[in-house]
Amino acid sequence: MLITPGKLLGQINSPADLKKLDQAQLVQLSEELRQFIIDNVSVYGGHFGASLGVVELTVALHYVFNTPYDQLVWDVGHQAYGHKILTGRRDSFHTNRFYKGISGFPKRKESEYDAFGVGHSSTSVSAALGMAFASKSQGITDKQHVAIIGDGALTGGMAFEGLNHAGVSDTNLLIILNDNCMSIDPNVGALKDYLTDITTSNTYNKLKDDVWNLLGKLSKFGKNAQEIVSKIENGIKSTVLSQSNLFESLHLRYFGPVDGHDVDHLVAVLNDLKKIKGPKILHCVTTKGKGFGPAEKGNATTWHSPGTFDKITGEIYKKVYTVPQAPKYQDVFGHTLLELAKTNEKIFGITPAMPSGSSLNIMMKEMPDRAIDVGIAEQHAVTFSAGLATQGLIPFCNIYSSFMQRGYDQVVHDVCIQNLPVNFCLDRAGFAGSDGPTHHGAYDIAFFRCLPNIIVSAPMNEVELRNLMYTAQLPRTEKAFSIRYPRGQGVLPDWKKPFEEIKIGTGRKIREGEEIAILSIGHVGNYAVEVTDRLEKQGILVAHYDMRFAKPLDEPMLHEVFGKFKKIVTLEDGCVQGGFGSAILEFMADNNYSAEVKRLGIPDAVIEHGEQIELHHECGFDPEGIERTVIQMLEPVKSH
Amino acid sequence: MLITPGKLLGQINSPADLKKLDQAQLVQLSEELRQFIIDNVSVYGGHFGASLGVVELTVALHYVFNTPYDQLVWDVGHQAYGHKILTGRRDSFHTNRFYKGISGFPKRKESEYDAFGVGHSSTSVSAALGMAFASKSQGITDKQHVAIIGDGALTGGMAFEGLNHAGVSDTNLLIILNDNCMSIDPNVGALKDYLTDITTSNTYNKLKDDVWNLLGKLSKFGKNAQEIVSKIENGIKSTVLSQSNLFESLHLRYFGPVDGHDVDHLVAVLNDLKKIKGPKILHCVTTKGKGFGPAEKGNATTWHSPGTFDKITGEIYKKVYTVPQAPKYQDVFGHTLLELAKTNEKIFGITPAMPSGSSLNIMMKEMPDRAIDVGIAEQHAVTFSAGLATQGLIPFCNIYSSFMQRGYDQVVHDVCIQNLPVNFCLDRAGFAGSDGPTHHGAYDIAFFRCLPNIIVSAPMNEVELRNLMYTAQLPRTEKAFSIRYPRGQGVLPDWKKPFEEIKIGTGRKIREGEEIAILSIGHVGNYAVEVTDRLEKQGILVAHYDMRFAKPLDEPMLHEVFGKFKKIVTLEDGCVQGGFGSAILEFMADNNYSAEVKRLGIPDAVIEHGEQIELHHECGFDPEGIERTVIQMLEPVKSH
Repeated sequence: MLITPGKLLGQINSPADLKKLDQAQLVQLSEELRQFIIDNVSVYGGHFGASLGVVELTVALHYVFNTPYDQLVWDVGHQAYGHKILTGRRDSFHTNRFYKGISGFPKRKESEYDAFGVGHSSTSVSAALGMAFASKSQGITDKQHVAIIGDGALTGGMAFEGLNHAGVSDTNLLIILNDNCMSIDPNVGALKDYLTDITTSNTYNKLKDDVWNLLGKLSKFGKNAQEIVSKIENGIKSTVLSQSNLFESLHLRYFGPVDGHDVDHLVAVLNDLKKIKGPKILHCVTTKGKGFGPAEKGNATTWHSPGTFDKITGEIYKKVYTVPQAPKYQDVFGHTLLELAKTNEKIFGITPAMPSGSSLNIMMKEMPDRAIDVGIAEQHAVTFSAGLATQGLIPFCNIYSSFMQRGYDQVVHDVCIQNLPVNFCLDRAGFAGSDGPTHHGAYDIAFFRCLPNIIVSAPMNEVELRNLMYTAQLPRTEKAFSIRYPRGQGVLPDWKKPFEEIKIGTGRKIREGEEIAILSIGHVGNYAVEVTDRLEKQGILVAHYDMRFAKPLDEPMLHEVFGKFKKIVTLEDGCVQGGFGSAILEFMADNNYSAEVKRLGIPDAVIEHGEQIELHHECGFDPEGIERTVIQMLEPVKSH
Repeated sequence: MLITPGKLLGQINSPADLKKLDQAQLVQLSEELRQFIIDNVSVYGGHFGASLGVVELTVALHYVFNTPYDQLVWDVGHQAYGHKILTGRRDSFHTNRFYKGISGFPKRKESEYDAFGVGHSSTSVSAALGMAFASKSQGITDKQHVAIIGDGALTGGMAFEGLNHAGVSDTNLLIILNDNCMSIDPNVGALKDYLTDITTSNTYNKLKDDVWNLLGKLSKFGKNAQEIVSKIENGIKSTVLSQSNLFESLHLRYFGPVDGHDVDHLVAVLNDLKKIKGPKILHCVTTKGKGFGPAEKGNATTWHSPGTFDKITGEIYKKVYTVPQAPKYQDVFGHTLLELAKTNEKIFGITPAMPSGSSLNIMMKEMPDRAIDVGIAEQHAVTFSAGLATQGLIPFCNIYSSFMQRGYDQVVHDVCIQNLPVNFCLDRAGFAGSDGPTHHGAYDIAFFRCLPNIIVSAPMNEVELRNLMYTAQLPRTEKAFSIRYPRGQGVLPDWKKPFEEIKIGTGRKIREGEEIAILSIGHVGNYAVEVTDRLEKQGILVAHYDMRFAKPLDEPMLHEVFGKFKKIVTLEDGCVQGGFGSAILEFMADNNYSAEVKRLGIPDAVIEHGEQIELHHECGFDPEGIERTVIQMLEPVKSH
């Protein structure tokens, strides 16, 4: 089902077409663009609320600015659907986030209008400032560089680093603060309050109140007093407003707040700002999900990326299953942490702005004082957790694998070097799926296992996840502990088993075999089960070990393996450079074993978006690929 | 030569002794503490200016607070010498930064007074907030948690993340802003200007001026006008000052600025602050190098860590050499980048707050518009560089290896995934020396080589560094390029040779051999030269290959090596888990080679501080260790 665009939108194949419209037509175009997004996402899925919230802003930006010469950097990029549709991707938009289709995020390879690839938060100011600086240094003065950043993304420390530099840069940089009080979940932290404060003009209003209150006391000065105060008030207004503004403090000229849904006014304001040199910020107040009743009025978190839904009733479609389904790993984490926290009062949960995505919200609901959303702030999340650990508490810091990259120094410097027992639950490890390369959790095994004082593990199923979490919080463990698991469903509908301790650094033998063994880590071990089952039926006995730990390795088990097998397949949903398979090679070298080892996992390349199974297939470690590898290795060796 | 402390200081073996003093004696104690630091550092070396700047603050903190129950977190930690001396380490202070001696930074293992290990910047707010949060959640209300952070460290985004959370945390947290307008080099960025601004009360003064200017125009209101304005001014002062303050904007109660060298006043203020609940910030203005004339009046950067010096004249001792010395790698980088920039106008230099440490200041002096200090902001430095690269510029982003950890996500997300040609020059790769584990650059080969689209290299000498830099900026290279090199001297006094391109992914054979080969990467290859020289004289011919690239590997050369040798030693000044040696193992596995491989490098442990050669010895890859390994491998094989 291809979605038909509205009459105006149907004519717009590039921003040049948009510029041909009368300004008076932009309201209708915005409406059509909004409807086109609703129509598409309701059928094909994808991010939703964020793009609806910036429809008018998107139209105004492309109407006013000379893209792609002028450069737009969309922070995070969830909200760039309108941008994509207006810049030549309307007719391919139904492929959004599908394998081989267009990306759900701006992407340089995809379009010259996508000035900078995004996905993680808080990068836009730095990137756009780099562009603006380059223009300045090349003597280009007419070029505009625009970062569009949400109030959530602004809490990421990186954005502050960018602002601090921007304020002294004298470049042609416009930062548009898209303030909707949300990241995926409601935004948290002091900055959010501040933005709300200036939006409702409390600063100025409070000052005014103070002055008027004083006035009462000044009545003895006679009838002129009130007039005097009024004059003073107007006179100092500009000073107060500019000096009392956090952004002005950082030498950024502050404009706004403006209504982000008034496209006419936005066009006028942006035209004005184009003429103002130097770094500046426009504070734009928007509503996430604007224009779609259920999203606007309902739970914004639900409507961030709702899946498919009925665009009339707002009913979100849920698959109906006739047999019990395995839960999501996310939910197993959430329920298990709450369960553990009930018996161990030292346990705390920490998430950087992903309470719903990580399912930490399950614990937050019951124990709001012990489950903490610290905002988009992975660095802080890690060191804050380390601070908790110094006081004898047991933090479970849940961070998506790819976002963990942003707290890496803190893991090295504050956790591992100090040997502090912080537990990291790395969600979305392995391929993230339709979010694509920015969100794939490919590198965490490699970048963690090179560090001292950290346990690196991955469960093969829900029960192992539970037991690893249980083990992590035992007093005798007391070591940094990384537990990685993928996005999505596990394999055990009946998952809520009593806890059992897993001895650190032990794997389990799943199947005996002859000649060849598969050593797997994590959920992809289930593929190995499938393959070895199938091969067994053909009389090919392939051993399978679920190693569970990339660090420390189960050395007794590996001595058994290498004592018996000369052909080994390692299997992981992570990069093959430096990953689990390489740890096995290191064990071999350190113990003078020789064997033919084939490492399956994510190759040395940027893998694009798609369903996890599609990507596993592409990389040759879906069941078919594993089987092919095993069969090839069993063929008689050809001479080198 | 053991330094004799002053009379008061000589009695202080712990803060309990300090508390026995009359407050009136604190001035003298401060003087003695300052002198003790000067006496020690002038003889034994170490960080200098930062600790002198906080002498009074340190005395006041330990006088007022109940340490170690109350917790002090010293951001970065350069400035904690006074703290160490007052907390039981006076008599071991002469071992500061020496092998097996006390650490130059606070360190939890060393003392219960060191509440949190530091070294990298901007961690203190998060760590102290974690502690404060833990106290709060355990119902402990009397405990104080203090983060002492410099204005430079405050520009690190992580600090902002901490402030954003602190502002809504309702914890017993005191942040002391040690404002001296410096990091190691002069602090940069908009925040610095803002702090200067509020210190000199420009905000309030400007408001007052505006009001008084208005007054002129109000003269028609008669003689009372001036009095009215004055009343209003006083009335709104508190509002304006609080609302116009960046920290108050973030819900942190702001106090100050106060004179950080008035110990009496500091004691009074800290006693007051102790009684005020909730998160708060005390703005303390200090002078780096305070009390030592040459440091106070001279170049603060020079006096950050001056080496040994004459404490009377301020003359910094320099070693005198009778033969030409090899330059520091840092200076080779600095001079070479300037040289390249003169012939290639696209080249830009970027440093996050290390212009003097990295020697980028050489280029900054001649080309201030093309060599940029972005402040303590590694994340921003990387993505800003990526932004430059999108515009066709060629950024050389110089970041210490261990600080690179803080920009890791940006390398993955903004550079590698987008395949942007940003050049990373990783200074202080390998053991940093006396700065210790927080500064050791142990992991960069491992954490970079697992990423796609990046070249990972290390020069063995100055000429290779130059040629790698030359190669990195050639139009045909156009790929992210990491070049790592150690702190300190190279090996070639005559280093300024004409540039030669190095073909990407090629090593060089340094010596032919029999039976065994050493594959080295980077500067430690010179140890291999020494060893193979020596062994050759004993008739033992050991081959040596300087591989230069950990990624891509020189595959033709490795085919030659593994075709010929069955015993291999890999050698790197980096972690052996996942490092260069593991890359060699991966090549072997992928190509079905078998050989006995011994990987030399940094083991899986936290290695403490000491001279580089001491640490190489400890880890078994100094020349002696390398030779021992080679000889052992050449011995007849014992059965497994």
